[in-house]
Formats: sequence, structure tokens, C-alpha cells
Amino acid sequence: MSAHDEAAPTTIGELGEAATLGRIIPLLPESMRTLLGPGDDCAVVSVPDGRVPLTVDLMIEGPDFRVGLSTGYDVGWKACATNLADVAAMGATPTALIVAVAAPADTPVDFLEGIARGLRDAAQQLAPGCGVVGGDLSTAPVIMLSVTATGEFDGVDPVTRAGARVGHVVAVAGDLGRARTGLDLLFDHAVDARGHVDRAAVERLWQSHPDDIGAQLRPAPPISAGRRAALAGASAMMDVSDGLVMDARRIAAASGVGIDFDLAAVGSHVALIGGEDHAMLATFPLAATLPSEFRVIGRVVPRDGIFVDGAPFTESGGWDPLRDGDVRP
Amino acid sequence: MSAHDEAAPTTIGELGEAATLGRIIPLLPESMRTLLGPGDDCAVVSVPDGRVPLTVDLMIEGPDFRVGLSTGYDVGWKACATNLADVAAMGATPTALIVAVAAPADTPVDFLEGIARGLRDAAQQLAPGCGVVGGDLSTAPVIMLSVTATGEFDGVDPVTRAGARVGHVVAVAGDLGRARTGLDLLFDHAVDARGHVDRAAVERLWQSHPDDIGAQLRPAPPISAGRRAALAGASAMMDVSDGLVMDARRIAAASGVGIDFDLAAVGSHVALIGGEDHAMLATFPLAATLPSEFRVIGRVVPRDGIFVDGAPFTESGGWDPLRDGDVRP
Repeated sequence: MSAHDEAAPTTIGELGEAATLGRIIPLLPESMRTLLGPGDDCAVVSVPDGRVPLTVDLMIEGPDFRVGLSTGYDVGWKACATNLADVAAMGATPTALIVAVAAPADTPVDFLEGIARGLRDAAQQLAPGCGVVGGDLSTAPVIMLSVTATGEFDGVDPVTRAGARVGHVVAVAGDLGRARTGLDLLFDHAVDARGHVDRAAVERLWQSHPDDIGAQLRPAPPISAGRRAALAGASAMMDVSDGLVMDARRIAAASGVGIDFDLAAVGSHVALIGGEDHAMLATFPLAATLPSEFRVIGRVVPRDGIFVDGAPFTESGGWDPLRDGDVRP
Repeated sequence: MSAHDEAAPTTIGELGEAATLGRIIPLLPESMRTLLGPGDDCAVVSVPDGRVPLTVDLMIEGPDFRVGLSTGYDVGWKACATNLADVAAMGATPTALIVAVAAPADTPVDFLEGIARGLRDAAQQLAPGCGVVGGDLSTAPVIMLSVTATGEFDGVDPVTRAGARVGHVVAVAGDLGRARTGLDLLFDHAVDARGHVDRAAVERLWQSHPDDIGAQLRPAPPISAGRRAALAGASAMMDVSDGLVMDARRIAAASGVGIDFDLAAVGSHVALIGGEDHAMLATFPLAATLPSEFRVIGRVVPRDGIFVDGAPFTESGGWDPLRDGDVRP
């Protein structure tokens, strides 16, 4: 490595807003639905269906990621993937993202370029045609992203959490528990007692446990499966962000029913309580033909609550961002 | 004041996510275009026109506001008003907001309730029918809001920054310079050398200079004037967020023209360089009948750049959020 390579990286405070945007915007993915892109008061996106899904998620350094455990690329990828999953879980196809980023002035511009590349690759791989149409850039004491996502229903009604009915099957597309396993691996082997991150250990974990670390740092939820579930007549759907049981409780409460899981089909205890996989959890009428990505893991029952093999599941398995406030549950 | 009143305020960390949302969501304004409101993976908004404007702005404690100078109500009001102005400046009618808030766990829930009330009152007064359809809540080291706004074009084409043509008149609706004057008053009389805020002094300034302090802390941009300008055939438009000259440069650059201001019509030097008023700045063909809110302040000229009474205006008058990074320019 030459002396030049070891020079202090260029920061966004040194570059200023216009030059930083000049580095980032060319890296962002384009949306096939863009009528007007970045640079005006608003972006304008085509929504021929006349109904538009809208969702926002914050990703904040500390509660949601740590620099070192995550690269900028990982942060951008995950922010994109989790928002795409929210659109997919309504049965819509994601079309456009609005991305606001704030970071300390001493943040290397490389980190923000990494975020842009991560957004690009996640959009292109998980939801081709979806792109970033606008955003905002500012300063803050920690790095934070706000990603707003939208999409198009193309004639299919939104699939809410409220349509599960007794007798429907409960099915899931995508992994369950891997992201939590990856988080545990990272904290057990790459973060010391003082909270310092050993980047070399993170790299070794990527080599030894690529599926679990990937699920945590670069989740790849089955975005197109959400759309296919809607077309197949899914009665309720959401993406599993806080854990299968906690999120299933939300479908059960919204629908006024209970859900009984088959533990053998779910696979493991960590699959019941682990969050952040962003799998698609859906209910279907018995007569529906499930899309190939989905596997049946339970059924909708009349008694309120969540059950596993018929027994009430009382473990909360949850994480409250306001009370708990750090990466580790 | 009773002992009960002096008790420490309830914090959002004590309440947790669900209870905090239970306090906030009922305070939020409803959108007349809501097909599905808060509580699912996405909100769903009606967009009969088939084209949707999208914009986001961050408001971050430090660069964008200070607790004490601003109440929670002020923060919510301003976050709403500035985003409504971006939608209005495209010629659209604002219909829906997506609001993400993050705050330290020790933030009093009162402050977040104030934000919600400010959002509600600004939406109801400035853009009746526009409401909050969804959002996110998390923790961060400082208070921050991300507001995404959308609206409807209802058959009128978006008014970009690129349509100004030589010979068009330049006109503005709303105040210029008051928000900057209000900021100067606040820093001169209500913030000491160590940066501490004297809340009683803020209250006195509200009494003695309601228009200037109001323009800074609770701006009331002429939202409906944006729509009327579009209907009247405005050729270019934006809201004045960073100052008249700085923002006029953006229209001039996007349109490939220059703009010459009449200082007597603009009114003052602070009106040229002061930001944050969110007035509507528009250009119109000579044949257009300007909506009554607009006054002519200049004309579009062939020579690139910004001129005042024919002389090039070289003062930057700008503020770079990445380099400068605090409330005070």
C-alpha cells in the first residue's frame, strides 16, 4: 500500500453538499417509472394504477447498524431490501425509492458512495426496474438513512394484515432465523466487551458462515414472491421483520383470529423468534395454489393468540426500539 | 404549580414504542386520499392522475432546529410546511405525508405529541385534506424527522425548474427575508455565547416580532398559490428555501437563462439572500394572468447568471449543510 493510499480519506464536510451529491447520484439505480428524477422540488413517478403504496424505514447508526460490522455497502443494501420487502408484502411491485441520508461532516465520502452502491445492487437484484428518484442530504451526529419506498399494484388489491380467516393456511417464503443467527455470530466473535468491532473477524465470519452473515448484513428477501402471493389470492401478508411469532401476532390481531404453527415445518426455535429476515408471511384460502416460493408452516385457528403445535406460545421474543435502543436484543 | 406538575415528564423510553405511538397517532391529521392508513406494511394513497410527486426533507436537531428555540409544535409545523411547499412548487396539491421520527429515549413524550399537533395544524391550515398516512419511530442521539410528501397533479403537468424562457416575468408569492430576520433576532437575543437558549427571551420575541419569529419557527408558505400558478401557466417554479438569489440560480441554470431582479420590487437585501421563507418563486410568459398572490420582481434575461437592477449579483448568500452544519449560517 502506497503512502497515497494511507492518506486520510476525503470527508463529506471537505467536499460540501454539491460535490458529495455529484459523487453519489451517478451511482444510484434508475427507476423505470421515473417521469422526473433528482434535482427539482419533487421527483415525479408514474402510477398508472391510481393507488400508491408508501412506506418509510429509518436506519440509524447504533440501534440499526454499527460501522465496522456493516460497510456502507451493507447499510445501503439492507435499507433498500427492507423497504422493498414492505412494498412486496402489500402485493405491489416496488418501483421507486426516496432516500434521505445524514452523516457527521467527518464521514468519508467513500462510506456514502458505498451506501449508494449497496442501494443500487439490492434494487437491481431484488426488484429490477426499481430505482432512487430523489432524496435529501444533511448532517447529523450519527449516520442515518430514511428510505421511503413506493410501487404499483397494477390492478391487484392491496393485501393487508386483516384478511386471515379460520381455516386458511399460513405459509412463508424466504429464510427464518438466519439473520438472528448471523447477529449472534457477529456479537459473539467480532465485538469485544467494550463494543469495539474486529473487522478481520467480521471478514472471517463472512467466509465461514456466508448464509447467516449475509442474512443479517445483506438480506435478500423474496420480493417477487409477495407479488405472486397477491396474484394467487393471499388473504393477509406481511414481511417478517421483528420475528415470526411477533409479526404473526400482528396478523392475528388485525384479522381477529389465532395462528397455530407446526414447529417441524418452521424448523427451529430461532426461526420462531429471530427477526430481520424479511421473509414473506402470508395466509391463503385452502383452495389457493401457493406460489412455489411458499411453504406451509401453520394454519389459522379460531382461538386468539399464537400457538406452536397447539400450545400457546407466550415467549415475547421481541425488541422495542425505544426501550432497548441498541443493535443487540 | 403542584408537586405533581413538577414531576419528571414521561419519556418515550419509559413508554416504549406501542404506547408512544398510541399517544401520537390519534393526534395526526387524516388525509382525504387515504385508502389504507397507519398500521400495515405500507399506507395506500389514491392518485387518480396516475403521476405522483415525491419529496423528502430531513429536520435534524442541530443543523435544522434547537430545542428551546423551537417547541415540538414548532418542529412539527415547520417540517410539514416545508414539505408542503415542495409539492406546491411542482404545481400539485399536497395530499399525504409519511413521517419518520427518531429521538433519544429520554425525550419527553410531550415533545413528540407537540410535533404531531404541529404537523396537524400546519396541514389543516396550509393544505386542508392533506394528512399523515404512515411513518416510523426509532431512537437516535438527537431528535430528527424525515417527512416525505406527495400530492396530486389532477391533470396539470408538473412545473419544473427548467421552463423559464427569455422575456418571461419572474414573480413571487409569499414573504422574503422574514425567516432570516427572525433567525437573527433569535440568535441575537435568545442564545448566549455558550449556545444556551433563554426560553423567556424567545417568548418575548414572539410578542414583539410575531411576523419575523413566526416566519422562522412556523413558516406559512402560500401552498395553494403554487397550484394556482401552475393553472395560470407558470413556466418554471420552486419554493425559496435557501434564499431568493441562490434558488433563482437553480432555475436559471436548469433553464439555461439568466434572471434580473428589480431591487425595489424585491424590497431589501435580506429578501435577496435570506432563506427558509418557502415563498413560491415562479416565471410566467408575458401573456399569462398572474394569480393574485404573485407580485412581479424581475424578468428572465438571455445572459447567464443572476442580476440585480442589471448588475451581476456575486454574493453567494448560501449555506452548505455539510460544511457549515449548525443552525446559524
